[in-house]
Amino acid sequence: MREGKVVLDITMSLDGFIAGPNDGPENPLGDGGERLHEWVYDLAAFRQPHGLAGGETNNDSEILDEAFNRSGAIICGKRMFDAADGWGDDPPFHKPVFVLTHEDREELVKKGGTTFTFVTDGIESALEQARSVAGSKDVAIAGGANTVQQFIKAGLLDEMQIHVAPMMLGGGVRLFDRLTSQQIDLKKTGVIDSPQVTHLRFRFGN
Amino acid sequence: MREGKVVLDITMSLDGFIAGPNDGPENPLGDGGERLHEWVYDLAAFRQPHGLAGGETNNDSEILDEAFNRSGAIICGKRMFDAADGWGDDPPFHKPVFVLTHEDREELVKKGGTTFTFVTDGIESALEQARSVAGSKDVAIAGGANTVQQFIKAGLLDEMQIHVAPMMLGGGVRLFDRLTSQQIDLKKTGVIDSPQVTHLRFRFGN
Repeated sequence: MREGKVVLDITMSLDGFIAGPNDGPENPLGDGGERLHEWVYDLAAFRQPHGLAGGETNNDSEILDEAFNRSGAIICGKRMFDAADGWGDDPPFHKPVFVLTHEDREELVKKGGTTFTFVTDGIESALEQARSVAGSKDVAIAGGANTVQQFIKAGLLDEMQIHVAPMMLGGGVRLFDRLTSQQIDLKKTGVIDSPQVTHLRFRFGN
Repeated sequence: MREGKVVLDITMSLDGFIAGPNDGPENPLGDGGERLHEWVYDLAAFRQPHGLAGGETNNDSEILDEAFNRSGAIICGKRMFDAADGWGDDPPFHKPVFVLTHEDREELVKKGGTTFTFVTDGIESALEQARSVAGSKDVAIAGGANTVQQFIKAGLLDEMQIHVAPMMLGGGVRLFDRLTSQQIDLKKTGVIDSPQVTHLRFRFGN
């Protein structure tokens, strides 16, 4: 049986930001940050999990589909959960989501197969729980930056796909930050260029 | 006549650094920073301007050759000049170099056609002088980060080619930093993948 990987799939500006300046509950992607994701909004692979019909099918759509389908569980940070206001009644995940937090809270069961389990005892525990439901599928780290950084620092990330958007945000939330001079060699496993974005794939050596 | 562009050609780690931590005169690329440039050391296009015979010719070599040949003058910061100790008696540039500095200093004429002119009145002045000797060729901004940032903030950079090295340095000198929330759209003009590095080409909208 295939062993599931721990994977990251995220869009970053060329200057390294995944959200613009002044991000917060009212402005979850920060100033200009929604423009990072312009490449996804019209894709069928984005629209379908969001309950919308139609949309484009192309290379980008395949990449998004693949990223969506390969994961059996998702881990995200509480700040991201709050920023998205729990993704409403019918979240686009359709699978179990484990939310890293400091406060005890009961599991939330939403429409369409999305459940939110709140994990208060750290990333290893969240990963263990996510793996147990993901089976042979991957565990996807959804963000935000702090959560990603914790997984990288702990050496728990296996693969990542960075979608580089051709823009500079000039400030905001940096994806690769506070990694405390830890030098990490990556194995480049693929580069796919699309009109609006460049997909860079890497494997961690661990 | 072709009008010369202002171009940047630089190698960056995936996490955005062009030098590792603890950089200084004794350690110009910082801890681990020389590994960023591993893709160039064996190339004929790197060896030849450095007075070395032989070397590989491949896609990377062509890219480096092209970057070298298209520029008729170079601008760099004083810190970079000092870090490289003036590149010795026979620097690899073989063309006029303008060094941004705060102290008056006489022009240095070195072997092989490299001259260093020290410019004390800012980037616009350096650019004007560089353009006047470059003719229809480009003016290349060689670095360091601070110099690049000044050119970006002033809207004076036309094109850039970022060679993304598949590694994270975790700290050091960030290329795209202190851009003070200036959001900049880039036009992606090319992506070339090589075994050791990915070349991303962009044009600025200005």
